[in-house]
Amino acid sequence: MTHNIAILGASGYTGAELVRIIAGHPSFRIVALSADRKAGMTMAEVYPHLRHLALPTLVSLDEVDFAGVDLVFAALPHGLSQAIVKDLPASVKVVDLGADFRLRDPAEYEKWYGAAHVATDLQKEAVYGLTEFYRDDIKGARLVAGTGCNAATVQFALRPLIAANVIDLDDILCDLKNGPTGAGRSLKENMLFAERSTDVQGYAQGGVHRHLGEFDQEFAAIAGRPVTIQFTPHLVPVNRGILASCYVKGDPKTVHQTLAHAYAEEPFIVVLPFGQQPGVGHVTGSNFAHIGVTGDRISGRVLVTAAVDNLCKGSSGQAVQNANLMLGEDETAGLMMAPVFP
Amino acid sequence: MTHNIAILGASGYTGAELVRIIAGHPSFRIVALSADRKAGMTMAEVYPHLRHLALPTLVSLDEVDFAGVDLVFAALPHGLSQAIVKDLPASVKVVDLGADFRLRDPAEYEKWYGAAHVATDLQKEAVYGLTEFYRDDIKGARLVAGTGCNAATVQFALRPLIAANVIDLDDILCDLKNGPTGAGRSLKENMLFAERSTDVQGYAQGGVHRHLGEFDQEFAAIAGRPVTIQFTPHLVPVNRGILASCYVKGDPKTVHQTLAHAYAEEPFIVVLPFGQQPGVGHVTGSNFAHIGVTGDRISGRVLVTAAVDNLCKGSSGQAVQNANLMLGEDETAGLMMAPVFP
Amino acid sequence: MTHNIAILGASGYTGAELVRIIAGHPSFRIVALSADRKAGMTMAEVYPHLRHLALPTLVSLDEVDFAGVDLVFAALPHGLSQAIVKDLPASVKVVDLGADFRLRDPAEYEKWYGAAHVATDLQKEAVYGLTEFYRDDIKGARLVAGTGCNAATVQFALRPLIAANVIDLDDILCDLKNGPTGAGRSLKENMLFAERSTDVQGYAQGGVHRHLGEFDQEFAAIAGRPVTIQFTPHLVPVNRGILASCYVKGDPKTVHQTLAHAYAEEPFIVVLPFGQQPGVGHVTGSNFAHIGVTGDRISGRVLVTAAVDNLCKGSSGQAVQNANLMLGEDETAGLMMAPVFP
Amino acid sequence: MTHNIAILGASGYTGAELVRIIAGHPSFRIVALSADRKAGMTMAEVYPHLRHLALPTLVSLDEVDFAGVDLVFAALPHGLSQAIVKDLPASVKVVDLGADFRLRDPAEYEKWYGAAHVATDLQKEAVYGLTEFYRDDIKGARLVAGTGCNAATVQFALRPLIAANVIDLDDILCDLKNGPTGAGRSLKENMLFAERSTDVQGYAQGGVHRHLGEFDQEFAAIAGRPVTIQFTPHLVPVNRGILASCYVKGDPKTVHQTLAHAYAEEPFIVVLPFGQQPGVGHVTGSNFAHIGVTGDRISGRVLVTAAVDNLCKGSSGQAVQNANLMLGEDETAGLMMAPVFP
Repeated sequence: MTHNIAILGASGYTGAELVRIIAGHPSFRIVALSADRKAGMTMAEVYPHLRHLALPTLVSLDEVDFAGVDLVFAALPHGLSQAIVKDLPASVKVVDLGADFRLRDPAEYEKWYGAAHVATDLQKEAVYGLTEFYRDDIKGARLVAGTGCNAATVQFALRPLIAANVIDLDDILCDLKNGPTGAGRSLKENMLFAERSTDVQGYAQGGVHRHLGEFDQEFAAIAGRPVTIQFTPHLVPVNRGILASCYVKGDPKTVHQTLAHAYAEEPFIVVLPFGQQPGVGHVTGSNFAHIGVTGDRISGRVLVTAAVDNLCKGSSGQAVQNANLMLGEDETAGLMMAPVFP
Repeated sequence: MTHNIAILGASGYTGAELVRIIAGHPSFRIVALSADRKAGMTMAEVYPHLRHLALPTLVSLDEVDFAGVDLVFAALPHGLSQAIVKDLPASVKVVDLGADFRLRDPAEYEKWYGAAHVATDLQKEAVYGLTEFYRDDIKGARLVAGTGCNAATVQFALRPLIAANVIDLDDILCDLKNGPTGAGRSLKENMLFAERSTDVQGYAQGGVHRHLGEFDQEFAAIAGRPVTIQFTPHLVPVNRGILASCYVKGDPKTVHQTLAHAYAEEPFIVVLPFGQQPGVGHVTGSNFAHIGVTGDRISGRVLVTAAVDNLCKGSSGQAVQNANLMLGEDETAGLMMAPVFP
Repeated sequence: MTHNIAILGASGYTGAELVRIIAGHPSFRIVALSADRKAGMTMAEVYPHLRHLALPTLVSLDEVDFAGVDLVFAALPHGLSQAIVKDLPASVKVVDLGADFRLRDPAEYEKWYGAAHVATDLQKEAVYGLTEFYRDDIKGARLVAGTGCNAATVQFALRPLIAANVIDLDDILCDLKNGPTGAGRSLKENMLFAERSTDVQGYAQGGVHRHLGEFDQEFAAIAGRPVTIQFTPHLVPVNRGILASCYVKGDPKTVHQTLAHAYAEEPFIVVLPFGQQPGVGHVTGSNFAHIGVTGDRISGRVLVTAAVDNLCKGSSGQAVQNANLMLGEDETAGLMMAPVFP
Repeated sequence: MTHNIAILGASGYTGAELVRIIAGHPSFRIVALSADRKAGMTMAEVYPHLRHLALPTLVSLDEVDFAGVDLVFAALPHGLSQAIVKDLPASVKVVDLGADFRLRDPAEYEKWYGAAHVATDLQKEAVYGLTEFYRDDIKGARLVAGTGCNAATVQFALRPLIAANVIDLDDILCDLKNGPTGAGRSLKENMLFAERSTDVQGYAQGGVHRHLGEFDQEFAAIAGRPVTIQFTPHLVPVNRGILASCYVKGDPKTVHQTLAHAYAEEPFIVVLPFGQQPGVGHVTGSNFAHIGVTGDRISGRVLVTAAVDNLCKGSSGQAVQNANLMLGEDETAGLMMAPVFP
């Protein structure tokens, strides 16, 4: 059965990645693509790598005809998404790739995003889109909130450990190495090739990164108490990829076994043999996440490292995985492409 | 119908790329992987990005059991391939990704590769594997010789122009920009990250690159007379990709129309609108080739630029495309994955 | 003797490069830095790599006090520079790094830059800043026009050959591989790290690049007749560097000898042994240019390749070299730093 | 006064970097360069970026004439260096860039390097070469042991904090992002451009990296008790640079003030304003180290980040700085070149 798909905000990188994935999907058909500033252009003009595909021309948001659309992927700036989604026909399912529906608490939303939410009913209804942990809810959801890419990566490393109570909840430290595509196609001097290609530098450090709101919400829900992690992202010169080095306290072998057991049946989460560490180059272009666990010479210290492609498993791949569930398709449909290496 | 596939030389980059592609192929099943120096290792150890796949353990060449194998991909060093292929069971079809069967004339082989060919019968029998131009022969072939990656790229730009006699055959100049994966996984100082990542430099210049043998053979066959091109490759710091800037003399619009017409029905060759130029980033990880045509302020000069992913369309993608034909499958089976950008 | 230096347009890449070079100069002292949009900021805020230097705070153009200034480096957008320079005190010497004074003919200027020149007297007075060929004029000049970075690179390869009449003037083809810093710090989607880091693509092709105006002017002056070259730049993912592959017709050994002889006494131009090719990585961060000459299997074809760092020898290094001459200093003062490799 | 310098192991990256730096040094003259496997070659053949320099031809170690040599830089593999240095004439001063003399305790050396030391007398005599902290000892030393590049970077961040007792000594965690040049010019598959350019991956994790021996020795000496840090390096695709993210517990402002005060008079160590973070791109090619301090939303947590160029300040720049002291020159001679950015 074919499902009609609309992508709002198709001119950003996550929009392009959605198109790339859906091009290989057996039952999704793209019927509308919106991009306000690039309305009127073809996708081939905006993204020449998609030139071989037969795709609708980009239109502005208010030109999209939602009749017959089964599911919308919204890849819009935060703030805008909530305004758009609340006016969509009730028959249309929605996967939001932005930040608007990730936090359930309006106060938390306002704290991290600096403005009151305009669709608090939807905010409550939305299911958090970390597929491996919200699978059943997602199946029946009308609105799924895609997670932050950092948020997904770190949660893959930590959720089973928090749930199993095998690490010290008061001393969790996550140091991330991030490809610049996580910043999207926005025009900033420090995102120019000239400035990123020979640099490594931290950003949004000290506890101000908005994905912390997701960690706080999710980890508290699992632990039944507040869990406040330290989280530090760094930009590294690789297009795609997040490597999250998560430093925890516990027994290394127990940590490894807990993760291996938790993900044993997961199609996309691979736990490496004990002592091996993943590389972002080994998941590029794919929906896979690789997780490694290493002990330390200091007893009771454990390093859990998770690698994902931020545009795919961290965003658009996750979105398609959720859409598959929402539309009754096989969860892995269109998503089993192997990573591209070298 | 499932076809049993063996890959000889699976530990090199083209071997890994074959596995990546076949992982998404509807009817190919890998039953044997050989790699002499890495025999006994799993593919996950040699290429962690393929870790999620169920694959046979690597064995040495003489351990491969060819019973039940329908087709062999040979990704072996030149010289070795001819020795191996000539002893394979006659029932096994072969796509050779190396250089051993590209040149039909034993004298030419010896001239470019410095040693006499040891399987001259097979050399004559082999079909040159540039799919778009040898499709019918490939369908019935037992042995297909994969082309050089540079050779494929340049031929996509030039063959229709030579065939249509719309360019000056005595003044063809091709300047190539090549990603280092074309050199394979060989250990050389100038292939280290430290030495390539901030450098651009020519190599094998002045008419000594072995792919010239292919150009001479093929272009003479099309033109009915010798065609001697000038050909200069340069290493650029991008993993995958060849951009061939081919400078020819003729009428720009005629050149564009000739190419557009020649490739109008081809699933993988895209001719851009006149005046647009392709980028290697727009074909990365895919089996597509993009071709652009631009005129010049100097009347009668034309620039034809072709972009391919050297590991995919330039080698392993082409190999699968040929195998599809040889085994009676749809030519595009397993090969329609969209490029990965950014 | 200390010379007081002002840099107008100090917030761009060539401005920063001027500061870097002058930091090691024995007799230049920076007394003013202007940058309209960043006026009020310190250089450390705009360019943290210059943080260790004691530098004046950035001011707007009209706040610069030119009293006591010996020489101005103007690194301004074209059009603006001519308006500014014409109003400078006559006592101030000027090295213009932009395009405004490169072309002597007002009609040519208007043809390539799309607007009439507003300081045609200065345009006539300005000396073309290719130091190795205009050394004597530069010594006595008040206004020197820095060359285009591509223009410098290609002229190093070709000027002695045209002057010596050892190549065919009607068949010169230059294929360039360019680092994106040549585009400056301007904010464009295709200059983002995400879009350049895995791509190689031509730009400004077909004879529309503005540096062609310089080639036409200079080569005609040398040859005593029009010389129209074909010129095609390509963006490659390396911060600094231009590799110009210049295809000419002549005798390879004669070409090599002509270049070797022409540059035998030059401190910054190195002609490699015959058959060796330069890499941009071997001149990075320096004022050196490396030139290689190779023959071809086709008799009478020669490849001359020149490598420069576009920000240094191609722009700011050249500017300092010229300023040294204008101020009576040793031409190499502050410029002998070795390239940074790897 | 001119000092005669010999470089042993000149064909590696630190050897080349020594030559680059010394090329701009006012009083060092290179009189011998050794490189066993490349003996007989010119430096221009081994490192074309040094082609403009007049340098001695490479010779084998036993061909070096030490008569008249004032100081030797030994950039040799560990194990070899101790054997060579112990047989040098007593009149020759030595800066060893390898690991052989970093650890004073023979048992510690054997533990980390797997073999007994063959020159334990010299081991005891050697001064640890972290200039900013051993300045007086270095001035009078005959043998100085260059530090590990990671060891230098992390010590810049931590030594003043341990000395001032302002951080918790039992909970120090250092996550490093390292350019691959730290591995030298050794030929390994995972150091190929193809494998590093799109990857980020940890290595030598879990407390096995040999630089831990240096931390243990140095921090215990400062603290007067054992200090065991957690230390995790990761490879990132940037040629030069180490970014050390050091997570400590203490008061952020106190930490910042302690560092700012400690380095107030240092010519090469720059402490950024509170809350700013350094980038490795801002020290590339230079002898500077940038240090940043940020607090966290979790009270009592501090992130101290240090950026150095591993080949320069982390190795060869430090070596020249030490040699300056040993030879009675100004400590900064030849070392004030500004970083190269972009």
